[in-house]
Amino acid sequence: MTLFNQLSSVEKLTELERNPIDLTHEGILTTKRVDEMTAEALGIKMLYGTERVTDKVMEALFELADETNVIEKMALMQAGEVVNKIEGYECENRSVLHTAMRDFFDKRNEGPRGKEATDLAYQELEKLKRFLEEVEKQGFTDLVQIGIGGSDLGPRAIYLSLEAYKKENRKVHFISNVDPDDAHKIFSEVDPSKTLFVVVSKSGSTLETLTNEELIKKHLEEKGLSTKDHMIAVTGKSSPMDNPDKYRESFYIWDYIGGRYSVTSMVGCVELAFALGMEKFLDFLRGANAMDKLALSKDYKENLPLIGALLGVWNRNFLHLPTCAVIPYSQAMIRFPAHLQQLDMESNGKRINKHGEPVDYDTGPIVWGEPGTNGQHSFYQCIHQGTTTVPIEFIGFKESQYADDLEVKGTSSQEKLLANLFAQSIGLATGKRSDNPNKFFPGNRPNHILLTKKCDPYTIGALLAYFEHKVAFQGFIWDINSFDQEGVQLGKVLANKIIDFFAKMKNGEEIDPKDFPIAQAYLKHLKAM
Amino acid sequence: MTLFNQLSSVEKLTELERNPIDLTHEGILTTKRVDEMTAEALGIKMLYGTERVTDKVMEALFELADETNVIEKMALMQAGEVVNKIEGYECENRSVLHTAMRDFFDKRNEGPRGKEATDLAYQELEKLKRFLEEVEKQGFTDLVQIGIGGSDLGPRAIYLSLEAYKKENRKVHFISNVDPDDAHKIFSEVDPSKTLFVVVSKSGSTLETLTNEELIKKHLEEKGLSTKDHMIAVTGKSSPMDNPDKYRESFYIWDYIGGRYSVTSMVGCVELAFALGMEKFLDFLRGANAMDKLALSKDYKENLPLIGALLGVWNRNFLHLPTCAVIPYSQAMIRFPAHLQQLDMESNGKRINKHGEPVDYDTGPIVWGEPGTNGQHSFYQCIHQGTTTVPIEFIGFKESQYADDLEVKGTSSQEKLLANLFAQSIGLATGKRSDNPNKFFPGNRPNHILLTKKCDPYTIGALLAYFEHKVAFQGFIWDINSFDQEGVQLGKVLANKIIDFFAKMKNGEEIDPKDFPIAQAYLKHLKAM
Repeated sequence: MTLFNQLSSVEKLTELERNPIDLTHEGILTTKRVDEMTAEALGIKMLYGTERVTDKVMEALFELADETNVIEKMALMQAGEVVNKIEGYECENRSVLHTAMRDFFDKRNEGPRGKEATDLAYQELEKLKRFLEEVEKQGFTDLVQIGIGGSDLGPRAIYLSLEAYKKENRKVHFISNVDPDDAHKIFSEVDPSKTLFVVVSKSGSTLETLTNEELIKKHLEEKGLSTKDHMIAVTGKSSPMDNPDKYRESFYIWDYIGGRYSVTSMVGCVELAFALGMEKFLDFLRGANAMDKLALSKDYKENLPLIGALLGVWNRNFLHLPTCAVIPYSQAMIRFPAHLQQLDMESNGKRINKHGEPVDYDTGPIVWGEPGTNGQHSFYQCIHQGTTTVPIEFIGFKESQYADDLEVKGTSSQEKLLANLFAQSIGLATGKRSDNPNKFFPGNRPNHILLTKKCDPYTIGALLAYFEHKVAFQGFIWDINSFDQEGVQLGKVLANKIIDFFAKMKNGEEIDPKDFPIAQAYLKHLKAM
Repeated sequence: MTLFNQLSSVEKLTELERNPIDLTHEGILTTKRVDEMTAEALGIKMLYGTERVTDKVMEALFELADETNVIEKMALMQAGEVVNKIEGYECENRSVLHTAMRDFFDKRNEGPRGKEATDLAYQELEKLKRFLEEVEKQGFTDLVQIGIGGSDLGPRAIYLSLEAYKKENRKVHFISNVDPDDAHKIFSEVDPSKTLFVVVSKSGSTLETLTNEELIKKHLEEKGLSTKDHMIAVTGKSSPMDNPDKYRESFYIWDYIGGRYSVTSMVGCVELAFALGMEKFLDFLRGANAMDKLALSKDYKENLPLIGALLGVWNRNFLHLPTCAVIPYSQAMIRFPAHLQQLDMESNGKRINKHGEPVDYDTGPIVWGEPGTNGQHSFYQCIHQGTTTVPIEFIGFKESQYADDLEVKGTSSQEKLLANLFAQSIGLATGKRSDNPNKFFPGNRPNHILLTKKCDPYTIGALLAYFEHKVAFQGFIWDINSFDQEGVQLGKVLANKIIDFFAKMKNGEEIDPKDFPIAQAYLKHLKAM
């Protein structure tokens, strides 16, 4: 076992980091550099000439990929090897098979567990197809997805990204927060008699989701509607929610599908296929599957998620940049950064390696972002002239979704959007000199663009999988387990204790003053408000 | 002039940072500490016992406030002194008078420019009142705000926060992005005959906004509606948009109102008063005004925005934490963090001090956030166990907005929400030991809670102003100009060049290959897609 800081590529990169390329220097950012630092696959171009890398840095990064066997690990993951584990300690000990959820096209991955997972997923897909035909006949128009975390963020981000492609008279809504105002607002917006409520929880025991389910049931009953006719479960087989008496249909997920990787499982499939119709929905899966295969490519120069991962590692571990912004120049992708926050930070915000030892290097960065051009009128001041450098992953599209555009002064809105994207990418890299220190731009803000034709189902599927594999590759390189989330347990345990206190106070029961006194101090302050 | 790093308080704090208090240590986080580290004013409690501060640190921070004369600077700002400037260089050279937009209650600030600004603002408010009475009679139900940056983020964040309080049959929508899909989607959702379109641009020349205005006009004309009857301008006097032939009404803003500080000017007032009605809207202004006055208090222990600012400076400059998350445990506040990104990062993401010299200390952090409990199911893994510590500013409410709640297992959803908030605050500070390294929580993640009764107009007004003054205080301490945004200019200039290229290409005009060749390389890649 070789630790990250003992890799020979890391030694080279540590040498190279001392003197990173200066993109503000005349003659550095040339058209030749832009052309040479362009990778392309699946209709997506990655323009990374504006990252602070040289050919030497890229070579050393590719060597890092070799030394850490990332392609082999990716293949093992997709084949169903147990990669969700920490050696020598109690852990989840599971396969990681979200790629099997969309492995229905072309050549399948024949890894033994992978194949079985694909077969099971295909059964659910067939069931979903039949179900949607029924629903079509019965005239349902709305679907409310009740879930939190991965049962909300990814499915919501993708739905919004593709809302332009939904069937007429179909709409999807989401309830996630245990905040009761969230459910109230949605319920007041739909006609419940034409609405399906999809309750999503792998464990069948998620506090927020079950609480919201109860709220919805109360509302349905008040309207004189049968809860069973309107409620659908997406859950693990034999979970407390796997109960045909309570739901008109149950769709299954499995323990090898992590919440943040579950968009292409039934967690996202039910709402997306309801909204888009089967054909466009399959295009979305097709895009994801194509990216899964690309991630296995040993031709590093076309392996987009690997290049993205390596550039991220360079920025994080060698340029020492603590955050990473993802900025899609598309309003439809407004919630994509929120999904990536979970995907990336829950996967790679880890402090021990796969052998249970604390790491002595940085792992996953703080991921954040908003759509452009909006961000330009918000936080770009800080990005251009702040004291903390923020690397950016831009996403851009040649065409708009609705093609409802207008030429003003000789250019369309879509062209203006793209002009802004290109301008930011270049300006952040080159900066600008000025005698007025307030108009001086230091430049050398690393960034790259993922440029593609249109924000359509296939492309969004490919982009979803791009980020899943970028994150997985970084986890392989950092030698961490990107697939568990032990860091969320402490909060749950403590919250349950405090919920208990609330219940006791209501019943007039005594609470031992020595039991979690800090929480009692907080409750005292609350009570006094 | 004393530079930040030469202040005697900074010297003390630098000494203290070497050995910050260890909150994970048994007996450190006591109920006594929680009680003593609670500040309270305007019905808001700030619980900061979970920050890594001691009495000595707080003393030194208050000394920092003294040394940098922050209260005096706040008073000068509110009185209308020209505080938006860089000494010795061409700059905006303006007063900063957003506080005058809500200075109608109790005792007014009598600073000469402040008083004049308040009088002008009051005239607009009277005009708005008359206008809304007309609109009421004419049966308008919807309002679309067309603006970007400060004309969008703040007004949208506040509207969503207070949507529970809106009048029946009133709804506000927002179009911001130059992405044409944004306008298309909104227009398809409203009945244009009953809709007002409010175009907001101080300069009257914002590219995105004017483009969207044209798109909307096209749609109105297609429907056979008079554009003038439906369009309202919010702009600077004598801007290109100040044109009574084109708009049914114009409301004015002034150069002393920065975009990110404009929510309580007509930029936010028109849509908020339309939605909430005059009475609740004035409550919102009243809350902001009360916080303005609190920010002038020399009793530091009740001056909430000052304490917030100082804790932020401790985390940023002494604990060296690059980001700051704001996490409201309220779904209604979902876009509040996006507003704070602009407010904070555009104000304090600066690299020179007010004398034009580059700073040698960190200024504004990267601000980000999502509502809780949602975040718990997303990025909290990284917050608890990642390698980069994230300080958090939590916001919590005793009561829900709609009071549409349900008891499940003896507690309401609102109580579960609060239990989670308290659990996170405590767990992040104390951490948890375990023999399984994956279940070990290092703790010492600094955080505090702003706890208040209800997310209502007065409180949201107070919270809005809390953050405005927190940011201003930090700017005073760092000796930077928090009120300009020169860092957004470069992108605009470069974007206009590229927009020109698009127009030329369409006309078949030649572009000189030596003119901005990198942009031409990008365009070549786009064309080849």
